[in-house]
Amino acid sequence: MPTLDFWFEFASTYSYPAAMRMAGRAEQAGVDVRWRPFLLGAIFKQQGWPADSPFNWQPAKGRYMWRDLERICAHFGLGFRQPETFPQSSLLAARVATVGMEHDWGQDFARAVYRAEFAQGRQIGNRAVIALLLNDVGVDPEPVLAYAETDVIKAKLRRETEEAQRLGIFGAPSFVTADGELFWGNDRLEAALAWANR
Amino acid sequence: MPTLDFWFEFASTYSYPAAMRMAGRAEQAGVDVRWRPFLLGAIFKQQGWPADSPFNWQPAKGRYMWRDLERICAHFGLGFRQPETFPQSSLLAARVATVGMEHDWGQDFARAVYRAEFAQGRQIGNRAVIALLLNDVGVDPEPVLAYAETDVIKAKLRRETEEAQRLGIFGAPSFVTADGELFWGNDRLEAALAWANR
Repeated sequence: MPTLDFWFEFASTYSYPAAMRMAGRAEQAGVDVRWRPFLLGAIFKQQGWPADSPFNWQPAKGRYMWRDLERICAHFGLGFRQPETFPQSSLLAARVATVGMEHDWGQDFARAVYRAEFAQGRQIGNRAVIALLLNDVGVDPEPVLAYAETDVIKAKLRRETEEAQRLGIFGAPSFVTADGELFWGNDRLEAALAWANR
Repeated sequence: MPTLDFWFEFASTYSYPAAMRMAGRAEQAGVDVRWRPFLLGAIFKQQGWPADSPFNWQPAKGRYMWRDLERICAHFGLGFRQPETFPQSSLLAARVATVGMEHDWGQDFARAVYRAEFAQGRQIGNRAVIALLLNDVGVDPEPVLAYAETDVIKAKLRRETEEAQRLGIFGAPSFVTADGELFWGNDRLEAALAWANR
């Protein structure tokens, strides 16, 4: 079965519709998708960019993005509520997702985080919120949170982020095929699956 | 008939496929499209950005863009050759297009400029190249070039650029519907036409 790597960042707005659409589209396309959380902020930092989201330091683009995201969510029937805080800290969620992808609840957890952040007005940087989301996907929160904050997981997420940068990734969501083609953005999801299937 | 404003910049890479696809898609959709050249560099400058293209001062994004554009052109059957000089000066071409849109040769000229720049390896900042392109679309170059460099046309293009900025435009190509919806990027062309047609 063809494969595709799906690189996502929980602070990334357009990663939300991509994450919600991915499982269905991948099944239709017959592509096996590996979900790979990473930290985009670390890549921005290495490029010498401001620590803040480009959608904040580029206000016209930011205003457009929120409206565009609202239209996209309406189009795909996804809930949407503009978060009061943006960007939110995605570090803990990314560490927990790194654990989850080693088990069978990673994708459910990732979707739950995106829904909490972009449809339910919740704060995903909050440990108690992450614990509730773990509970929702049927996982006992405390052992997972404890493991997510060990050096093993911290180092794994750091290596994944370095790998993303090595692959030329500069934004999220990004998709990388087995032959190294990079696609960037929710609006390239179908093109990436089609390329994987060539 | 529903209408749509198509804002384009000759230095903009993704404006090339949008310009080549627009007439056919607009006819299919039954939408009357107004082609509006403007100067994106002036908007970047007002935002305090570097004078250079973001694809140059964001090298990872730049590398991605050239590959993405190559794939898009292959997909749509458009010629493509990465220009040796990027970005090219678009000022004269934009002034001439401003004249052309007052007549019936504006769209043909715009397509000829994009083809020259992104498929034929020619320098669109060069007055002699613009003269040849005018010739190709059946227009006597010298009177048009002289008129394009009068204060009347310079001021008109400046007003159009100010209008683009007022509409929230921060990139090209952009599409604006009669009810004020803004869409950005070649990959939003179909969504913009569909919105115009609602």
